[in-house]
Amino acid sequence: MPVYDDPVGGSRVDAGALLRWTTELVERLGAPLDIANDVAEVLVASDLRGIASHGTARLPQYVMLAEARVMNPAARPVLERGKPALSLFDAQNGFGHHAGRVAVDYAIDRAAESGAAVSVVRNSNHYGIAGWYAMRAAANGMIGVSLTNTSPLVAPTRARVSMLGTNPIAVAAPAGKYEMLVLDMATSTIPRGRIEVAARRGERLPVGWAIAPDGSPATTPEQALAGSLQPLGGEESTAGYKGYGLALIVELLTGVLGGAAFGPNIIGLFSTAGKSDLGQFYMAIDPGAIDDRAAFVARLERLIDQIIHAPLIPDAPGPVLYPGQPESERASRQHRQGIVIDREHHVSLLSLAQRFGIPFPETQVATTTPS
Amino acid sequence: MPVYDDPVGGSRVDAGALLRWTTELVERLGAPLDIANDVAEVLVASDLRGIASHGTARLPQYVMLAEARVMNPAARPVLERGKPALSLFDAQNGFGHHAGRVAVDYAIDRAAESGAAVSVVRNSNHYGIAGWYAMRAAANGMIGVSLTNTSPLVAPTRARVSMLGTNPIAVAAPAGKYEMLVLDMATSTIPRGRIEVAARRGERLPVGWAIAPDGSPATTPEQALAGSLQPLGGEESTAGYKGYGLALIVELLTGVLGGAAFGPNIIGLFSTAGKSDLGQFYMAIDPGAIDDRAAFVARLERLIDQIIHAPLIPDAPGPVLYPGQPESERASRQHRQGIVIDREHHVSLLSLAQRFGIPFPETQVATTTPS
Repeated sequence: MPVYDDPVGGSRVDAGALLRWTTELVERLGAPLDIANDVAEVLVASDLRGIASHGTARLPQYVMLAEARVMNPAARPVLERGKPALSLFDAQNGFGHHAGRVAVDYAIDRAAESGAAVSVVRNSNHYGIAGWYAMRAAANGMIGVSLTNTSPLVAPTRARVSMLGTNPIAVAAPAGKYEMLVLDMATSTIPRGRIEVAARRGERLPVGWAIAPDGSPATTPEQALAGSLQPLGGEESTAGYKGYGLALIVELLTGVLGGAAFGPNIIGLFSTAGKSDLGQFYMAIDPGAIDDRAAFVARLERLIDQIIHAPLIPDAPGPVLYPGQPESERASRQHRQGIVIDREHHVSLLSLAQRFGIPFPETQVATTTPS
Repeated sequence: MPVYDDPVGGSRVDAGALLRWTTELVERLGAPLDIANDVAEVLVASDLRGIASHGTARLPQYVMLAEARVMNPAARPVLERGKPALSLFDAQNGFGHHAGRVAVDYAIDRAAESGAAVSVVRNSNHYGIAGWYAMRAAANGMIGVSLTNTSPLVAPTRARVSMLGTNPIAVAAPAGKYEMLVLDMATSTIPRGRIEVAARRGERLPVGWAIAPDGSPATTPEQALAGSLQPLGGEESTAGYKGYGLALIVELLTGVLGGAAFGPNIIGLFSTAGKSDLGQFYMAIDPGAIDDRAAFVARLERLIDQIIHAPLIPDAPGPVLYPGQPESERASRQHRQGIVIDREHHVSLLSLAQRFGIPFPETQVATTTPS
């Protein structure tokens, strides 16, 4: 359920053209072609799925990190230690997207041999949407899991300061006629970007989204931006401690397991004060190791069938959805019609295009409202 | 954060005596000693941790299922297929506790060789607290994961009928001076038992706990008990679709992956209309495959240190807790002082004691209030 709907005054750009432009830009930062291509693939996939906060809109920040030399665009991950079903990679402070692609592919290959496998990455950076790596496993017929820690924005239940990131959980699986089931969720109630949207719209906030710096529920976006996000579930009375627990488990499996930075010790992901040293976790599970893959997919299809045809609550804004459905529908449409980017996003990319002398692809005014 | 605090008019019973009595009772149902011992261990561990809903209070229902021959107390799980890191067991419709103990031990042994391993179980039954199996891995120095599907009680976001179980997620890890981190949470906002408590207390319900049969938010326990629980996050506006997504992922990894029953097709766990055919998922991850185990534990200790010392919100009812802390403190106290069971629970066990001719252990009136 994407947050960043309806960019007003947006521009439409062809997905393939944006991919080539992004690849060229990332190469110009010092990344070899294969690394640049991984970064561009993940960013454009995010834009296609309507998750504008994690796509090419991040390029100005990547440029800043590379130029400040707090990350190394040319770095390749190194396999440090491991056994057949658990491996540790050092990302060498390179692009998280490339380290992630290498690590999840490694897990997929090992899972094909052993039935299941985990890759953990340390010394990494921002990797875009968590879902991309889980989808990579699902595209190979497997169940994929992708987790990352992030800089602290979330206050544990009862605490009034941020101690944990929005630490996303992504899981994907092949789903036959439904293509793919893709859960990709922050373990906070809402992402920080949603507060920024509320600020632009002048909205007041419901209880459970965020706390003010003094620890009371934030009622305005300004209080929330100065304070902390709340974990999924919100207040203690509505089980916010479960979202806190999930964020902590993501931290356990990424930074703590991988020997990367963790929790309150992670500096801002886009800060030039130092390297991020993030931890990431990937798992692939091959249903073919214990059953016919087709039988597994048929069961998942049937479950989705049953759920999406359930009778609706009175005020339902639409049908019952399965995880990843709106993003997948948007990706199909934008693949055909072009990706709609908002004005601010467009201007920031044009500025990079000019600076690096890489002409930005042709765009059209987005007259239809994407939904 | 246990729900079942403060039994009024309770009795205190020695944990070891309750364990022996439970073992003998389960043997009398036709289970060999080792199976009976597994069942008793899990149930008494639940009572010790203050999760009365999943402990020996379930014995009358197990007796009913065994006597109706819809489950087989003597059945032993069979390893059906697998590769080194993913195995499928058929529980042969036996006790879920025993199948779970065997399957998680198998995953622990395989993880010691391969670094990580998954066991999936089909054709299983109720297995008590999900956390017990994750803790088994943690007691062996590993990260443990335990998942089960359950009979449908939760309505997906926008749906007005129950399609998914409360599908718990449990993760545990060794935590040095904090002993163990144990997250053990239903993916619904609250368990059904909490609604029953609200009914006894005459409470009204907050939005986000449950819906009435017509799909509107349930404001009374009666409406909720006739309707459906809501997934973690509650309403769509507070991200209830994330809890729905998590419940669906648990279903994916248990019933769908294992080839057991799933979602709305699962009959009531304690119904004698037919067998449950539950699916369960266990994973063990050995940090020792990629690092010194002690270094891993030291990092987790440090993270917990930092979190529990965070400054508090103004109305905090106590300090910041780490997952599993209240349950672990209660278990230590009840191990020393005896387990406090409420009147209804005590009467139901006395009735079984009389029927099977196994004298119930001596109890004392619980004069102090457990907390």
